[in-house]
Amino acid sequence: MIVATTIRAVRARRQELDRLGRRVALVPTMGALHEGHLSLVREAARRADEVWVSIFVNPTQFGPNEDFDRYPRQLERDRELLEAEGVALLFAPTTKEMYPKPPSVLLDVPQLTAGLCGAHRPGHFRGVALVVVKLFNILRPEVAVFGAKDYQQATVIKRLVEELDLPVEVVVAPTVREADGLAMSSRNAYLHGPDRQAAAILQAALRAAAAALVAGERRGQVLEGIVAAHVASEPAARLQYAAAVHPDTLEPLETVGDRVVLAVAAFVGGVRLIDNLVVEVP
Amino acid sequence: MIVATTIRAVRARRQELDRLGRRVALVPTMGALHEGHLSLVREAARRADEVWVSIFVNPTQFGPNEDFDRYPRQLERDRELLEAEGVALLFAPTTKEMYPKPPSVLLDVPQLTAGLCGAHRPGHFRGVALVVVKLFNILRPEVAVFGAKDYQQATVIKRLVEELDLPVEVVVAPTVREADGLAMSSRNAYLHGPDRQAAAILQAALRAAAAALVAGERRGQVLEGIVAAHVASEPAARLQYAAAVHPDTLEPLETVGDRVVLAVAAFVGGVRLIDNLVVEVP
Repeated sequence: MIVATTIRAVRARRQELDRLGRRVALVPTMGALHEGHLSLVREAARRADEVWVSIFVNPTQFGPNEDFDRYPRQLERDRELLEAEGVALLFAPTTKEMYPKPPSVLLDVPQLTAGLCGAHRPGHFRGVALVVVKLFNILRPEVAVFGAKDYQQATVIKRLVEELDLPVEVVVAPTVREADGLAMSSRNAYLHGPDRQAAAILQAALRAAAAALVAGERRGQVLEGIVAAHVASEPAARLQYAAAVHPDTLEPLETVGDRVVLAVAAFVGGVRLIDNLVVEVP
Repeated sequence: MIVATTIRAVRARRQELDRLGRRVALVPTMGALHEGHLSLVREAARRADEVWVSIFVNPTQFGPNEDFDRYPRQLERDRELLEAEGVALLFAPTTKEMYPKPPSVLLDVPQLTAGLCGAHRPGHFRGVALVVVKLFNILRPEVAVFGAKDYQQATVIKRLVEELDLPVEVVVAPTVREADGLAMSSRNAYLHGPDRQAAAILQAALRAAAAALVAGERRGQVLEGIVAAHVASEPAARLQYAAAVHPDTLEPLETVGDRVVLAVAAFVGGVRLIDNLVVEVP
């Protein structure tokens, strides 16, 4: 596995692959890799000649009071995991390499980032959009694989690719879960003891709303209320939002049609967790 | 010369060139080509194996009360001019091809677009930024050549390329002028009779300020006043702005250092014209 830390090095390698006609599938990550990331790597391997992974804890997507400083970093372990998966190249730039100057470009999809996590993390998706477009332009992958857990992020990236005509195919791979349903996340490392058990309430709450939907409940607000009530039933959890939104526009649905995204964000033991379910109405 | 009207066709051609290792220099235009555009084409020819030109009157960079509908369109004549210059490919997409849906992505460099033309044409540079990034992603040129007449535009594009890590070298080529100093522009076609002669006042006004600068005047506001007074001396002209700004930040300069951009916008006979001079202080 090649470990590249500079844009220049990775561009040189990309040009070699261009000449060889070899296709690259990228998995962009912030490191602290878990089984969810590795499932994205395996999905990427099915779709191109080489898998490339980026590890970059992107400062521009963290708010001033968020966990940028304490976000888990374990590059050596990540490197070993990726090597074992047969990843061809790891791009692990410094902040200075990615942002030699404070960025002045504003990139956003306001219609998609006004609600859900965007409403609670101002600037977050601008940071995501900027770093993902930078990574696409630096690494020029033919395919990029993202996790379904970050549904709003994946929707924003698909829109950017579509409207900016970025020459990359975006693949969204299913969320990988622990045995009790908790969506895998690097931030789960912050959870200890009873908080870890309480965290399963997010997925349980979404499943309860999905069951009501399948049983005939079509009112968006009622479905949101079911999610909220379930989260409230867990004393260690504090709801940030519960939402029933359109899968493409992310707009709240008064009445659910044939597809809905049920999404939730909650704090458990001070750790902010998110999860979602895409439900096709029978 | 290949004439491509679809993204699919031009991407296929670009992939062929990738395999051949041939480099492309792009000249993005809105058509109605004049000697200024052709000088960009010749500059492009010196910098790559093939010159590609795009002709697209981009609706997203026109305000609701601007001249999108009457902007000059003469594709057949443009095609002949480009053929004669040895251009390898003309990309002339429809609006529907470039914008199958109304765009929702917001791309801007607010620090660079707040003043000068940006202050008088809200949304203009967002439209420019969007279409240029789209064209770069569709055509993937190694080099792109822009005219110095649109100084603010060139500055915005260079910043986008730098911060988004777009793999393209931006070249800014000198403004081509008529015998009386008028900067060549497709909009000059709107000028008739005495208005055409009056239009030379923009360049004359900038030269007067540059002469004062060389003679020792360093106060930005005084230099702006010289430009404004000259434009006011021409009854057919109405000043929109006169500015003395930093060449990189485009911020107004209280005191001019070693470099300054003197920029002017004025209406002559109802036609909005712009011009600028970059002056190195001796």
